[in-house]
Amino acid sequence: MQPISDLDTPAVLIDLDRLERNVARMAEKARAAGVALRPHCKTHKLPEVARMQLNAGARGITLAKVGEAEVFAAQGFDDIFLAYPIVGAQKARRLLALADRVRLAVGADSVAGARTLADAFAAAGRQLDVMLKIDVGLHRAGVLPEQALALARQLVDLKGLRLRGIFTHAGQGYGCETTEALAGTGHHEGDSMAAVARELRGAGLPCDVVSVGSTPTALFAMRPGVTESRPGTYVYYDASEVSLGVCTMDDCAISVLATVVSTPAADRAVLDAGSKTLSNDILRPKASGNGWIVGRESRLQRLSEEHGVVGVVPGESFTVGERVRIIPNHACVVSNLVDSVYAVRGGQVEAEWRVAARGRIV
Amino acid sequence: MQPISDLDTPAVLIDLDRLERNVARMAEKARAAGVALRPHCKTHKLPEVARMQLNAGARGITLAKVGEAEVFAAQGFDDIFLAYPIVGAQKARRLLALADRVRLAVGADSVAGARTLADAFAAAGRQLDVMLKIDVGLHRAGVLPEQALALARQLVDLKGLRLRGIFTHAGQGYGCETTEALAGTGHHEGDSMAAVARELRGAGLPCDVVSVGSTPTALFAMRPGVTESRPGTYVYYDASEVSLGVCTMDDCAISVLATVVSTPAADRAVLDAGSKTLSNDILRPKASGNGWIVGRESRLQRLSEEHGVVGVVPGESFTVGERVRIIPNHACVVSNLVDSVYAVRGGQVEAEWRVAARGRIV
Repeated sequence: MQPISDLDTPAVLIDLDRLERNVARMAEKARAAGVALRPHCKTHKLPEVARMQLNAGARGITLAKVGEAEVFAAQGFDDIFLAYPIVGAQKARRLLALADRVRLAVGADSVAGARTLADAFAAAGRQLDVMLKIDVGLHRAGVLPEQALALARQLVDLKGLRLRGIFTHAGQGYGCETTEALAGTGHHEGDSMAAVARELRGAGLPCDVVSVGSTPTALFAMRPGVTESRPGTYVYYDASEVSLGVCTMDDCAISVLATVVSTPAADRAVLDAGSKTLSNDILRPKASGNGWIVGRESRLQRLSEEHGVVGVVPGESFTVGERVRIIPNHACVVSNLVDSVYAVRGGQVEAEWRVAARGRIV
Repeated sequence: MQPISDLDTPAVLIDLDRLERNVARMAEKARAAGVALRPHCKTHKLPEVARMQLNAGARGITLAKVGEAEVFAAQGFDDIFLAYPIVGAQKARRLLALADRVRLAVGADSVAGARTLADAFAAAGRQLDVMLKIDVGLHRAGVLPEQALALARQLVDLKGLRLRGIFTHAGQGYGCETTEALAGTGHHEGDSMAAVARELRGAGLPCDVVSVGSTPTALFAMRPGVTESRPGTYVYYDASEVSLGVCTMDDCAISVLATVVSTPAADRAVLDAGSKTLSNDILRPKASGNGWIVGRESRLQRLSEEHGVVGVVPGESFTVGERVRIIPNHACVVSNLVDSVYAVRGGQVEAEWRVAARGRIV
């Protein structure tokens, strides 16, 4: 154990009290709703935190990339869903190896994509679980609800695949400027998915799992018929989640400790944390600056790679050498930018966690 | 050697022919102008490329963080300038160790900041070279030209420091929408610095080095009185440099190889490269999309961490499984996002380079 003040900057701090509370609360919400929790671990990329989530009752974990699944499988995690349309023979070979030791499922939203995996599994005399991706309004990947049945029929015909269910991600919630809009988005998410599931089952197709995702809509989307929820950001929260009204500043478990390195003008200070630590991801639902400074009104106004430029408001001042904490706009991308984070409690560093699944892009 | 087609995606490719040409050309421009070249290696973070730059005639290298300098020093690089206002006793200790084996200089723009380094060097009976940062219009760090003399006088009075010269970074060039504006910015950069140098020398202060930086202004800022240039991005170039008119698409040595994983609508395709590979850095000088697809009119319209959403223009189409190459908005941040890049020539991968100085934020 060392005091936080001994850390050099910039450093990413994880407040253990808040983390533990966030993990427990979401687990309790899911339990109360009778929905299985399968948190997206892209937010932290840490086996240590995923273990806490499982201990609190999570059924399994969610990731996006095969390389991330390999990291977590090597750490003993044995139930992994890759919520992403995985495509390609090279990835299929790695999935075959993963499926030997993990209860595995992957996303799919096209026959052409799914076939690249099905062929490899069929050739090996095996079956891969797939989840059909439904687009309930984000308009990124996924088929529209009215297209789901036709695609599901084609997927179940592919040798080497087994249809486990359907999933979605209502990322459009990040654009909701009122709680009413967010609630509506979540209700639509859950109800649309329940309807698609009924349609598939009515046609005699399997649909064991009906899975929704996203932290902002999580509490609203646990509707009748939904069996699984995959929020990610709730473990740490961030400035965007505060802006969305999903949590308060006191729930934010992640912060970036930074040092003031320059005060070239009365209305400007420069921190040693730039986009290489905070990213240039914008504040949601409405872009406004690059991060909040704890206890100050002054905000980060622009970033370059190594500089965070603070617009100093009248009445505040910063001193070269002074340390501040920044609540980032987006927690997940911060995890991906650093080799390790520091787990802190009461002013002390309890552990340095290597971000084991950082940078696994393939 | 393996064909590029054997690489899994996403993958960052470095075109060796273009890289070598870019390195040679900038070296020749600097030589012709009688200006020493000290490239900023944050763009690539690769000892392999820095070695090429030295072999082409570069005098030394530029970096921002102490941790980056440690990586390059361990690889034998012996002349390093940290173009950043380094602050703090912890970093001072590491600089002391570095200065044992490297000809070192660091930036400074305040007495308070410089003193945190000076104290450690004075206590060790040693001297650290500092370069005074001048703000010629970016309004990030640095003192205004009219404040330079007063600060320089204070810096030379600090025991443990030696004033080597002055430096600037005309990053405002990234906002210039015409070549005329860019030329004007570069001329102002070089001339302002030459004037500050004359003032310092006229007052009997040392100012051996007059150093300018930035790829867009590089060719314009090599004015009489400027002794050193520190461009970075020119080794790779990127979509922003093309937009600024500084190079052509055929000069871009960096690209991201990606696979189409979803084609959910006629006007939309999804690539397996998102902000985790490309970053959300905007196109300069005018924000427009998240990267250009080589040989296509369709552009990346938005990114999430693992998804690159292409707005497919009429007349074009994408097929699941198809591979494309993306020219990123900003090369430097891509280098920081990946563990390794692939050096390619004529369809073949000649080497996998580990990005040795990636993620060195401290």
